[in-house]
This record gives sequence, C-alpha cells and structure tokens, in this order.
Amino acid sequence: MTFLKGLLRYPIIQAPMAGGPSCPKLASVVSEAGGMGFLAAGYKTNDEMEKEISEVKQLTKKLFGVNVFVPQKSEIDSPVLSSYIDTLESEADRLGVSLGEAVWDDDCYDEKIEYLLANPVPVVSFTFGCPPNGLISKLQQRGSFVIITVTTPEEAEIAFKVEPDALCLQGVEAGGHRGSFDDKDVPGKDLSLLSLLSAVRSNIDLPLIVAGGIMHGRDIAAVIMSGAAVAQIGTAFLRCTESGTNQFQKSAMADPSFQHTMFTRAFSGRKARGIANRFMLEYNSAPSAYPQINNVTKPLRREAAARGDTGTMNMWAGQGFRFAEELPAAKIVERLVRECRQAFDEIKTKTHESII
Amino acid sequence: MTFLKGLLRYPIIQAPMAGGPSCPKLASVVSEAGGMGFLAAGYKTNDEMEKEISEVKQLTKKLFGVNVFVPQKSEIDSPVLSSYIDTLESEADRLGVSLGEAVWDDDCYDEKIEYLLANPVPVVSFTFGCPPNGLISKLQQRGSFVIITVTTPEEAEIAFKVEPDALCLQGVEAGGHRGSFDDKDVPGKDLSLLSLLSAVRSNIDLPLIVAGGIMHGRDIAAVIMSGAAVAQIGTAFLRCTESGTNQFQKSAMADPSFQHTMFTRAFSGRKARGIANRFMLEYNSAPSAYPQINNVTKPLRREAAARGDTGTMNMWAGQGFRFAEELPAAKIVERLVRECRQAFDEIKTKTHESII
Repeated sequence: MTFLKGLLRYPIIQAPMAGGPSCPKLASVVSEAGGMGFLAAGYKTNDEMEKEISEVKQLTKKLFGVNVFVPQKSEIDSPVLSSYIDTLESEADRLGVSLGEAVWDDDCYDEKIEYLLANPVPVVSFTFGCPPNGLISKLQQRGSFVIITVTTPEEAEIAFKVEPDALCLQGVEAGGHRGSFDDKDVPGKDLSLLSLLSAVRSNIDLPLIVAGGIMHGRDIAAVIMSGAAVAQIGTAFLRCTESGTNQFQKSAMADPSFQHTMFTRAFSGRKARGIANRFMLEYNSAPSAYPQINNVTKPLRREAAARGDTGTMNMWAGQGFRFAEELPAAKIVERLVRECRQAFDEIKTKTHESII
Repeated sequence: MTFLKGLLRYPIIQAPMAGGPSCPKLASVVSEAGGMGFLAAGYKTNDEMEKEISEVKQLTKKLFGVNVFVPQKSEIDSPVLSSYIDTLESEADRLGVSLGEAVWDDDCYDEKIEYLLANPVPVVSFTFGCPPNGLISKLQQRGSFVIITVTTPEEAEIAFKVEPDALCLQGVEAGGHRGSFDDKDVPGKDLSLLSLLSAVRSNIDLPLIVAGGIMHGRDIAAVIMSGAAVAQIGTAFLRCTESGTNQFQKSAMADPSFQHTMFTRAFSGRKARGIANRFMLEYNSAPSAYPQINNVTKPLRREAAARGDTGTMNMWAGQGFRFAEELPAAKIVERLVRECRQAFDEIKTKTHESII
C-alpha cells in the first residue's frame, strides 16, 4: 500500500485506453493533478511505446504507468472466421479500402517487455493474461510496481500467485476490451464491479484497483467503502481536452442518437464494450478470433474514423459514457475529488442512527 | 423518505423472490429484525396471495410488502417457440411428465389488484412493467407505499411519471427475472447496479431502493454512499432457515460443482439469472416467450425440483450466491447491519487526507 499512501495523492488512476485516448499529454496531466496517468502500449510498436514514455517523462516527474497486452494463442474456428471476413467485404468496398490480413501477432510483447526491463517505468500493468512470476519479480527488482488486470475471482487467484503488487478488477461496466485471460463464452464472466470486488476482497491480500462505470466522485467513495484501494477511471476522461480520443467519437458521446453501450466482437474478435452503433448491431454474431479480426478490420476502422462515419467506427466506452465531460483532465480530477470528499463528509456528519 | 426514516429501522429490504423463497415466515422474520420482508405474489393465485398476506399479518405488526407481476402482451415468434418446445419433449419423457400448454396468462393480475385495493398492505411493488398513474394513486389513497421496479434510466423516467413513492433499481447482478418492462434484446439493458444508480440518482427525486449483488454490509454502505436509500437483498436470504427455497437448491448453492450464474430464457421465456446448470447451458438459445415457456416447463421444473435434479431445475440466484449463509434470517440482518456500521465507522475515524 506504500504505492497508494506514499506516491498517489488521490486514489484515482486514469485507465490505459489503447487506440488513441491514453496519450502522453493525458497521462501527464492526470499525474500532475494528483491522480496517476497511464499509457496504453497495446497496438503500438515498441518504438511508439518508447516515444510515448519519453514524452510523459518530459512532461511530469510524477508516477505514471504503462499497460501491456499479454499475447495469447487461442483456438480459431477458421471456416467461421473466413465467412465473417467475407461479410465485411462490402463494408471495405463502400469505404474504398482493402481488408487487412487475418493474422495472429503478439503485439510486440517481447520487445516491449525487454524495453521495460531495461528502462523501468514506475508502474507496469498487464491485460489479457497473467505473466509468469519470473517476469513479475524481474520488473519489481527494477523498481516497477506491477498490476495484473482480472475480471473473475478465478483470474484473481491465478494472478495472486505470481505475486504482483496490486490487482486491477475490471467490472462488466467498463469500456473497451474485457481484460479476461481468454475470450471464451462461459458462465461467470459477467461480474459487475461490486460483485467482483465482493468476491475478491476477502481472499486476496493485495491493494485492489477497481475499474468499471465510475463516473462520479461518490462512486469512488462507494468503491472505497466496498474495499477498493483506488478507482481506475477511463470513460470519464474520454472527452477531456487532453485525451487522444477521435473527435467524432467525442461528439458522438454527447449526441442523443447514441444512447447505449453493448459488447461486441465485430471489430476485434474479442469481447469489448463500446457505444452501440450500426456496425455492432449488424455484425453482432462476429466470432471470437483475436487479434485476427482486429487486423482484418484495421483499414476499415481507420477509414471510418477519418471520415467520421460513426455508424462504422469503433467507439469504446463504458456504461456511464453520458457523464463524460468535455473539460481539461485536471478539472475532471478536481471534480471527482470534490464529489468524493462531499460523499464522505455527508456520512461523517451523520449519526449512526440516521444512517443505519 | 418518511418510509425510510419513520418505519424502517434498517435500510434493508428482503427482496420478493417468487417461486417459493419469499414465504410469510421469511418476510415476517426480516420485518421483525428491523428490515422489511416481502411477499412475492408472482405465479400465485389470488387465494394463495391472500393466504400468505394473512399469515404475515399474524406473524408481525411491522411493515411488509407484496410484489405483483405486471402482465404484458409481447410478440411471440410461434414457429421458433414450437420448435423450442419440441426440443423439451425428451426432457419431459425422461422425467415422466407431460409438458404444460404454451398459453399466455395475466398471473391473476386483476384479481390481485382488486384484493390489494380492498385490503391494503403497507407496501406494494410492481415488476415487469409500469402500472398507470390511476392505479398507483388509488393504492396510495388506501395507504399503500408504492414501488416500481426498473432496470434502465428510460424505465425510471417512465415510472417516475406515474408518481410512485419509490423506485427499485435492479442491477444486472440480481438473481431471478430481470424486472424490465419488456424482454427485448436491445443495447443498454445490461446496466450494473452502480451504473444504473449513477444514471438515475441525479434525475429522479424519489427514494431509490437498489437490488443486485448485495451480499455484505459494506456493500450496503457502498450503495448508500452512492445515493441509494435502501438495499434490497434477495440472494443473501436464499439459504436462510426461514426461506422457502427448495432444499436441493440450498445445497447446490454451497456445492463447489456449481460456481457461476448466467442469464437464461430456457425455463420461462424471459431473461432471468440463475445458477448455471446443464439445462441452462443446453437450452441457451431459448426464445423470448413469457409466460408461455414458463407454463410449458412448469411440470418439468416441478418434477426436477422434487427429485433434486439440480441439472434440470431452475435455481434463481444473483452473482454473489456463494456468500449466502445457512443461518436464521434475523442473524443475517444482524450481520449485514454490523458490517455496514463497521464500514461507516472506518470512514468516520479516518482523516480526509488518508481517504482522499
């Protein structure tokens, strides 16, 4: 907990949001404001990650984190994948692009790890899997605080065994990809933040960072009440001045014609939550095949995002996206802290009898 | 809020769980213990409901509630329904029963309402729909406190307009049927309790009763922190001494071979959360057709429950069912209150700086 008490002023971590939003500017501003900023190494080359780390280091001397996707080999149903790709051809034609290749890749994992071992950053977090204890301890020996993202009590047990410094519990409310160790559709993978926290807090003696649907300060107060050490917040920063979120997505988030989020595999072949749009509804039976489908749709997504075709682009966001504000990130941190303090103050001034 | 402050000692409502668990004994014990017990009129005849109300009145002079299912006519895809029923024939054969008729019914709604108007009970709550303002105000004129169950901000807006005394927000964590106004699969119907509360609390000036995944007292503290007036708790009472839960379900809830919950339409034709078992996994593509499928599977469910065929019976439960204890209900209320107080005390003794 020294991580928390000594280094973080507020129990607020800006979630690593891959694909643009979590840029060096955003990360540094949140860290400067008393929370902790995060870079998302996912989808980036090692050079791109390195460049972002250098930028953050120039912008702040405070704590920041780098999130890395753990690669995994999963069984792909090739005929099903092929026929899904076939259905996307008309989308590609319409946008005048060619679909990408349905190839597996490791997201430059080995290179990134090599770099992070040679050039330690304050915090490293992992998503999509559990690295071996050997790697965790090496990172720790080099001074990094290591976090593993989990979505079920079973994953928490596995992660606990490799001795990270903290776990990040991702509830089903969270935007973007599920941080699950695999993409299988089996029961028990739909735990909300409170259910997950409730199931994990009594068994796992580690600081618990919690993510999913936290848009207001009183929700931070609520999760702390429920046993969390820190709230990890992504969606609330998506529209902020410093975020690298696509401008059309920022507008869509305030557009009444976009009301809801849903899970989809249509864009990447892995379950992710985003703002429900035509593409997600039309391809809602997309198969599990990550990162193959992600590579296939890349030109499609890029072109749709450039054109502002909000019916076709991926707009990752959590359940509370309606409350994301178009403000400087520091103002958002300030608001969250103020609201959280108010919520605690309300409780402190009440007598026992009037609460319970 | 007089409901809360004047009449309820603790902000704990025992959820109405239709199909057995919420019996008069359970309801009265929870009310006597300082919470509020609830009868579930769903699936019962008017006479059965009347009998249960009389029993509760003999057992306690304290506040209690009666929950009523609002009937709705929805479009049924008859060929799909027929072919689903065909697949159930082998289950019926195996258990030596005949499937029920795929008929619609109104769950004796009109009779129940007539009775409740003529013989007012302290609290009436509605699930599966929003009764008209005329009915709400008649119930209120007769002294009943009226609650409407909602699962989305849109339903909350609709319910607010008919002027009930409180809303019950049901998060996606909750066991049993989704209380949604319809059973359509559209985006935005999967809000967790915290996300739903966060979306509703600023717009709706009514006491908010919240349900879904609340198994421990610190979760009650958390939802109060997040703006709830009262926690509605079902699953935590499922295994208690006084509940009418099927004995085989009570055992299954502590059996390590049952680990997870999932949503299913297999038993009733309406989305409901229960402990994942063979039947749910095998018929996971069951169509939406409520109450037709519920009537079809009734003999099947009854026989499976009598035999203790836990692979075939429906075992409704919320995400936190592992924490349900086999204790007298009063002990559970006592524990919840103690834990909630502890959570608030921890906060009160901390300084600002050490919290945030």
